[in-house]
Amino acid sequence: MRIIDVHGHISAPLALYAYQAQLIASKGFHGKGRPACSAEEVLTASDAHRELLGKLGIDTQFISPRPFAMMHSQKPDKIVHWYTEHVNDMIHQQVSAYPDTFVGVAGLPQSAGVSPANVVAELERCVTELGFVGCVINPDPGEGDYATPPLGDEWWYPLYQKMVDLDVPALIHSAACSNPRESYSNHFITEESIAILSLVESRVFTDFPGLRLIVAHGGGSIPYQIGRWRAQRLQKKGEPFEESLRRLYFDTVLYSPDALELLLKVVGPDRCLFATEAPGIGSGYDPQVGRNLDDLKPVIEAVDWLTNGQRDAIFHDNAQAVFPRWTR
Amino acid sequence: MRIIDVHGHISAPLALYAYQAQLIASKGFHGKGRPACSAEEVLTASDAHRELLGKLGIDTQFISPRPFAMMHSQKPDKIVHWYTEHVNDMIHQQVSAYPDTFVGVAGLPQSAGVSPANVVAELERCVTELGFVGCVINPDPGEGDYATPPLGDEWWYPLYQKMVDLDVPALIHSAACSNPRESYSNHFITEESIAILSLVESRVFTDFPGLRLIVAHGGGSIPYQIGRWRAQRLQKKGEPFEESLRRLYFDTVLYSPDALELLLKVVGPDRCLFATEAPGIGSGYDPQVGRNLDDLKPVIEAVDWLTNGQRDAIFHDNAQAVFPRWTR
Amino acid sequence: MRIIDVHGHISAPLALYAYQAQLIASKGFHGKGRPACSAEEVLTASDAHRELLGKLGIDTQFISPRPFAMMHSQKPDKIVHWYTEHVNDMIHQQVSAYPDTFVGVAGLPQSAGVSPANVVAELERCVTELGFVGCVINPDPGEGDYATPPLGDEWWYPLYQKMVDLDVPALIHSAACSNPRESYSNHFITEESIAILSLVESRVFTDFPGLRLIVAHGGGSIPYQIGRWRAQRLQKKGEPFEESLRRLYFDTVLYSPDALELLLKVVGPDRCLFATEAPGIGSGYDPQVGRNLDDLKPVIEAVDWLTNGQRDAIFHDNAQAVFPRWTR
Amino acid sequence: MRIIDVHGHISAPLALYAYQAQLIASKGFHGKGRPACSAEEVLTASDAHRELLGKLGIDTQFISPRPFAMMHSQKPDKIVHWYTEHVNDMIHQQVSAYPDTFVGVAGLPQSAGVSPANVVAELERCVTELGFVGCVINPDPGEGDYATPPLGDEWWYPLYQKMVDLDVPALIHSAACSNPRESYSNHFITEESIAILSLVESRVFTDFPGLRLIVAHGGGSIPYQIGRWRAQRLQKKGEPFEESLRRLYFDTVLYSPDALELLLKVVGPDRCLFATEAPGIGSGYDPQVGRNLDDLKPVIEAVDWLTNGQRDAIFHDNAQAVFPRWTR
Amino acid sequence: MRIIDVHGHISAPLALYAYQAQLIASKGFHGKGRPACSAEEVLTASDAHRELLGKLGIDTQFISPRPFAMMHSQKPDKIVHWYTEHVNDMIHQQVSAYPDTFVGVAGLPQSAGVSPANVVAELERCVTELGFVGCVINPDPGEGDYATPPLGDEWWYPLYQKMVDLDVPALIHSAACSNPRESYSNHFITEESIAILSLVESRVFTDFPGLRLIVAHGGGSIPYQIGRWRAQRLQKKGEPFEESLRRLYFDTVLYSPDALELLLKVVGPDRCLFATEAPGIGSGYDPQVGRNLDDLKPVIEAVDWLTNGQRDAIFHDNAQAVFPRWTR
Amino acid sequence: MRIIDVHGHISAPLALYAYQAQLIASKGFHGKGRPACSAEEVLTASDAHRELLGKLGIDTQFISPRPFAMMHSQKPDKIVHWYTEHVNDMIHQQVSAYPDTFVGVAGLPQSAGVSPANVVAELERCVTELGFVGCVINPDPGEGDYATPPLGDEWWYPLYQKMVDLDVPALIHSAACSNPRESYSNHFITEESIAILSLVESRVFTDFPGLRLIVAHGGGSIPYQIGRWRAQRLQKKGEPFEESLRRLYFDTVLYSPDALELLLKVVGPDRCLFATEAPGIGSGYDPQVGRNLDDLKPVIEAVDWLTNGQRDAIFHDNAQAVFPRWTR
Repeated sequence: MRIIDVHGHISAPLALYAYQAQLIASKGFHGKGRPACSAEEVLTASDAHRELLGKLGIDTQFISPRPFAMMHSQKPDKIVHWYTEHVNDMIHQQVSAYPDTFVGVAGLPQSAGVSPANVVAELERCVTELGFVGCVINPDPGEGDYATPPLGDEWWYPLYQKMVDLDVPALIHSAACSNPRESYSNHFITEESIAILSLVESRVFTDFPGLRLIVAHGGGSIPYQIGRWRAQRLQKKGEPFEESLRRLYFDTVLYSPDALELLLKVVGPDRCLFATEAPGIGSGYDPQVGRNLDDLKPVIEAVDWLTNGQRDAIFHDNAQAVFPRWTR
Repeated sequence: MRIIDVHGHISAPLALYAYQAQLIASKGFHGKGRPACSAEEVLTASDAHRELLGKLGIDTQFISPRPFAMMHSQKPDKIVHWYTEHVNDMIHQQVSAYPDTFVGVAGLPQSAGVSPANVVAELERCVTELGFVGCVINPDPGEGDYATPPLGDEWWYPLYQKMVDLDVPALIHSAACSNPRESYSNHFITEESIAILSLVESRVFTDFPGLRLIVAHGGGSIPYQIGRWRAQRLQKKGEPFEESLRRLYFDTVLYSPDALELLLKVVGPDRCLFATEAPGIGSGYDPQVGRNLDDLKPVIEAVDWLTNGQRDAIFHDNAQAVFPRWTR
Repeated sequence: MRIIDVHGHISAPLALYAYQAQLIASKGFHGKGRPACSAEEVLTASDAHRELLGKLGIDTQFISPRPFAMMHSQKPDKIVHWYTEHVNDMIHQQVSAYPDTFVGVAGLPQSAGVSPANVVAELERCVTELGFVGCVINPDPGEGDYATPPLGDEWWYPLYQKMVDLDVPALIHSAACSNPRESYSNHFITEESIAILSLVESRVFTDFPGLRLIVAHGGGSIPYQIGRWRAQRLQKKGEPFEESLRRLYFDTVLYSPDALELLLKVVGPDRCLFATEAPGIGSGYDPQVGRNLDDLKPVIEAVDWLTNGQRDAIFHDNAQAVFPRWTR
Repeated sequence: MRIIDVHGHISAPLALYAYQAQLIASKGFHGKGRPACSAEEVLTASDAHRELLGKLGIDTQFISPRPFAMMHSQKPDKIVHWYTEHVNDMIHQQVSAYPDTFVGVAGLPQSAGVSPANVVAELERCVTELGFVGCVINPDPGEGDYATPPLGDEWWYPLYQKMVDLDVPALIHSAACSNPRESYSNHFITEESIAILSLVESRVFTDFPGLRLIVAHGGGSIPYQIGRWRAQRLQKKGEPFEESLRRLYFDTVLYSPDALELLLKVVGPDRCLFATEAPGIGSGYDPQVGRNLDDLKPVIEAVDWLTNGQRDAIFHDNAQAVFPRWTR
Repeated sequence: MRIIDVHGHISAPLALYAYQAQLIASKGFHGKGRPACSAEEVLTASDAHRELLGKLGIDTQFISPRPFAMMHSQKPDKIVHWYTEHVNDMIHQQVSAYPDTFVGVAGLPQSAGVSPANVVAELERCVTELGFVGCVINPDPGEGDYATPPLGDEWWYPLYQKMVDLDVPALIHSAACSNPRESYSNHFITEESIAILSLVESRVFTDFPGLRLIVAHGGGSIPYQIGRWRAQRLQKKGEPFEESLRRLYFDTVLYSPDALELLLKVVGPDRCLFATEAPGIGSGYDPQVGRNLDDLKPVIEAVDWLTNGQRDAIFHDNAQAVFPRWTR
Repeated sequence: MRIIDVHGHISAPLALYAYQAQLIASKGFHGKGRPACSAEEVLTASDAHRELLGKLGIDTQFISPRPFAMMHSQKPDKIVHWYTEHVNDMIHQQVSAYPDTFVGVAGLPQSAGVSPANVVAELERCVTELGFVGCVINPDPGEGDYATPPLGDEWWYPLYQKMVDLDVPALIHSAACSNPRESYSNHFITEESIAILSLVESRVFTDFPGLRLIVAHGGGSIPYQIGRWRAQRLQKKGEPFEESLRRLYFDTVLYSPDALELLLKVVGPDRCLFATEAPGIGSGYDPQVGRNLDDLKPVIEAVDWLTNGQRDAIFHDNAQAVFPRWTR
């Protein structure tokens, strides 16, 4: 059985980010243009990436744009669209060249203050033309302002509807953060927590029974603070919180064996999808255990209470179920 | 050995909150005034509270004002001062009446946009006149705006200096939240995480070696997401993150045995202080285990890898060390 | 003939305001909930109130929520609705228990920046289900911002239409004030003056001939400054200002005999409704005259130029005419 | 005995206002410049004014710039200074030409957000060089924003100090109003009320025993609403409100005999200064009484309970006492 | 052949600007009213103006309101309408009295933040009732804010449509400027440059082939910086910039012979309309050349490479073509 | 004699801008770090640049960071400092490798809302340690807001003082522009015009007689609109505007022979410094003249009225005089 990592990001050539810097500096004055790199450079930019996946025992990784660079709060919004289209195209180039290793997941040109209806065209292009199997939703396109309704709000329904129509799931993963009190990295955790709490109190899964959402980084703080939320539900006498929580999926991007085991217990192996986000923040050598922090395959294999079927589900089968377009 | 709960909040008579509502509605036009209740009503308001502590096997609880009601972002700031003084006085009344059961921890009249230098007088009053042994710091007196520097910033030094001078620790615990995307309850978790990340990157403990800070609710998301922060430190080649983390203390207000065990592993029993925040959100009956969610004493007793000395530290000795004024 | 006081406010148990404080602190996170008091406590909270009315010779008082506590500028607006519904329900409880003494006047869940169309449902509930006979309009739900159109603007027409449909009048009475230059108490006077000046220049009474509006506290500053406004009208050669003014009604809540007599002269006894707002700010003993400031019945009786018919109108008949549902 | 009117405003040539319009349009780009009129035109502009005073039986009027045109919220603040200097100079021209009829009262170049310390130079110039005897204070130089501390605040002390040093009083009189809910005309009344309430609660008269302040237009709403403020003071058990109120002076610019009589009763004839603000809003013929609304001399003469000494005080002696520089 | 100056502004009596100052100070409280001047004063206000035109050899001048005084950012917008209507009426009075000398060009009551649809009624009145032949567009009614879309945006289409329907051109000429870094005078130049660059990149002339726009003051900076914009177009491989530029017209209000000759070369004599803006900023005596700076007729006559036909076009024929209603 | 181009910008490797994009996305969370390129890549990035200079007959070019990418309005300001330091270091690397071709001109880490005192350290480092001979001043570090005082304001004096102390001049050249009505490219022109108008009205050259400032792109609009500004000065009867203007220097970056000749006439050859900004926006082939737009050496050689000495001054001697450190 193949080992599937559902949460990876493209290793792009520097030219992509130089292009982005120019868009931001010029506010789009030079037109859409294109990153200054050859098709070959796009592919060689993934060499170390693919090599690392091999070392980690990952057969296939689902790759999307690198989130903290999505620039969703930059204006004018056309530069967000241009950047997103180019990075999705680069993903497509790498996927086309290495179809066993990479599968495409679309970045969306979300823009602060603009309805999600504005991103469905790019999602449709990525899925129907480029063969992508899912997308990434940034629950906070304002990147640290308070202006965007949370994910349980009907404001997001145009996007959910298109996802259901195309039968693709989304990874919930925020981007940059302009709030000076919080790094983008911790903002990921904050927004994942907010996303979960909003969704479990909402009508979203009633209104879109076919919607599938994966919360990145093991669900922010929620599995750890689950007692707090179970308590609140007990007071409200509603459905147990842990049941509501299981309407969502979670990835395993937690570089701590204890935390990963906690996640598996709280939400169940059938709601967890193997993922490493490698190469990324976790790609450092951990002297405590003598391997990389993002070398998570042995970590999961070492959870002794998992059955073989549960391990297969985490490594492969859950991904197949959540991303049905992948197997087509 | 007595069981000490370091994180509790006063059960106050309704008159306190009616008084608060009147302050907010009148913006302080009626002057300071006082809550409309007798000294006896202040005491009887704690009857059920003390009874619950008995059921939970808690001998002594450190009580402070209920955080979400601290109104730190209300203006004019004089009404924050008035409210805080009255609630600290009520705590003093209950502590004086039930000295075995209750120990006072001061609320601070923090005010959005006002320097912490403005709260040291009330802290001093509570410690030197009322015999309180610690205080609660709200790291976000703006209650959901972005205007307050994080706890690692020198902006907070006047308060830290006074705490060191008085030899009292603080419980880090945020208050209300006006950001419509986040409840005050999740804001606690968010702010605890931000507080930790700011403090461990700061010079605070170098500049105030004697400062002692306890992060409420098991440290927000940090123990669960520790892999992420260890990874970042490995990249920066600094002190291991887990060592930095151990400059702080943590309470055990996590209503989940698995989460509590994770906390103990990550930060070590010598940095954990038993606490339940009872009566509070966790005071509901959990049908899964057949007792209250905040009945945490048996949970800790059931952690089989703890030594007796470690259990004593959690239940009692750590509190004694962190709150040296308590034993005086 | 019974003495009718058309401007009183409920004496509610402290639990109501404790409930309000909790709504503000939690931003509604705990759901609607309810004030922590028994039905009996709701009734006994009015004991001193009813006793005072007896002393003042008032047979029946129309009671509404206490205005400065209406919290119309608090967000989210759902907490305004919840609070308003509960306080209207408490009024209903007291009216039901003491039908000779109390008559219900509805508070409206007005919310800063939200159309008055949003309050007609609660008005309808109060009138048709609870038997209330009028309502209170806060002309400044922003509580000291500048965002609300004045009462002469068509923005208010959905509320006026419902009032006409239900055949109920409104008392114009503002609430809190966040402008630090002005107390809520003087803001009442300011807003009453602005309300009158906007209405007399508008098409409101042309568009709603059946609309009846009572301006609280003797009409703010207008009767005293009438020369100024007569002068302006003379310049514009329109209808004499004093005639326009007489499209409105006024209450007698002026704790000064001279001022009260001025009001009667300026607007005429047929436009004045007896009222004391007792118990309230005026419930203090005035050593100058040897009785309470709000003991206004003898003051009116002492106005020697009033006929008996005019006194009857002030004390009773005008109220009957303005609140036709009362007598049904 | 001469009849003195302490509240009048210059009748200036159109060129002054054309100059002002040009300053506002150009934001001062053309430099200070000067109004396009001759010295003679400045004088003839007062012809009808002086004639009217004669008809009203006024011997001498104290004239200041027309308040609603003081443009205190216009930026840059240099244009406010330029305009104020020119209008004060024009007053000086008229006073020099008609020294029996006119006495100069200085407009101040107050500017939104700028300390009153910035106006003392112009006040000093007007008093020491031009022979003016008082000044006008706009308590709201932001003209309808909320940014200026009220008159009881120490923010105003640099101006009060200079007034005491120069031994000149001030007339409190606001200017324009950009709040769309309120006309400048009613804003006068609002601000006079706010001014009084702030001053009587402040330490101003303790800190400046020699300070003399006259509240325009009969004191806004305060004499009419005095019961309300007496009640509040009774609750606070402080000095009776009516005593505090008598630290201020009041003019008689109330175009209503009943209101004027109320004022005299409430504050006492010794605190009232005769004034008409003629020519002004009140200069219309009132068919009810067959004379101008601002023909107030007979109104005061008709108050039968005034002694001759009191009438002399109102018409002349109080002005002499409050404006000691006038008689020098 | 008559010499036609297409860019002049009314010399109005001071009463107009005194009226404007009063509107601004009162925010329109006194109603529309009218400038305090007689019909004769309106006419004599133009005496020096007509004399100057004679000296400059100008037979006919098209006059509009003086732009920097248009007050487009003042609120409430009704005062902008009132002022504009009066100044257009005064132009009509002067045109009617001196039909050989003056031709009317309408000011528009543009208002910050209000759609241009709001000005078409006044444009229609001026053209159909008063016989005006064109209008002035302020591309920045916010007068120095950033809120107005540039002239290439569809936001302006309601106005363009009415201009085409009425067959009248517009002079592009901004008004005041509240940005403290820039005088209104340089803001003219800035806004003319922005206007050109927006229009040449837009679809405006495709969507309105009959639209005719004249850019004031020789086109801002564009003819001088043309190399920069030609370069940009060469990079984009679009229509040469100089061709796009020739979709616009330009006036000759450049008080420098070298600059004027540069303009003629860059845009061609067939796109230039003779204009002096006299009397105005250029009406000073230039000691270098021994005549007024705005004495531009001899300057153009001295350009030796112009043919007689080109000179006729500049002085007369282009105006006839651009303002077809003029000859009707 | 060598041909000196005083206005060029570094041709940097893509890694510099990829680094910049990462700083913006991460808000500096990853620390200063460094661009991902080798020393050799820094040098080869200038290959085409040096080749182009050879073709254009330029012997030596003064190079600074590319202005529109200076990111002065990005926050936190530490990322502006980091970026500026790296790009100055890259300039130093290229200058060290090609000392005949390149001379260093420092970019400054200006930051929106931060005093220029904050940039003098980096200027000193560049001049004393890296051997740079001048710097670039962005007159609008807010990049399109209105918050920065213009260059004539004392706010800029700390920087001017340091420039005089170090004996280095500055090129005035703005950066990006967030005002959606204006591209960064036209914002250059706007800001150059504002800079000139502010400086010529200021005391800067009186207070700093040794200060030398070069206005980029031929002085914005000012030489073309000089008649307008001469007129204004004639009205004010001050020093002739053309004399004031000659306190500044100007570069020849105008890709139009006619415009360039106008510049030479208006300000004089002794105030002009040869410059092309090549490679840049002008590096396109102009089919009209059969060479690049930025091939300006033959353009200046073709100005027939220039003496040889004037040509030498433009091409070389003026640069030597303005940049005295260059020849050291």
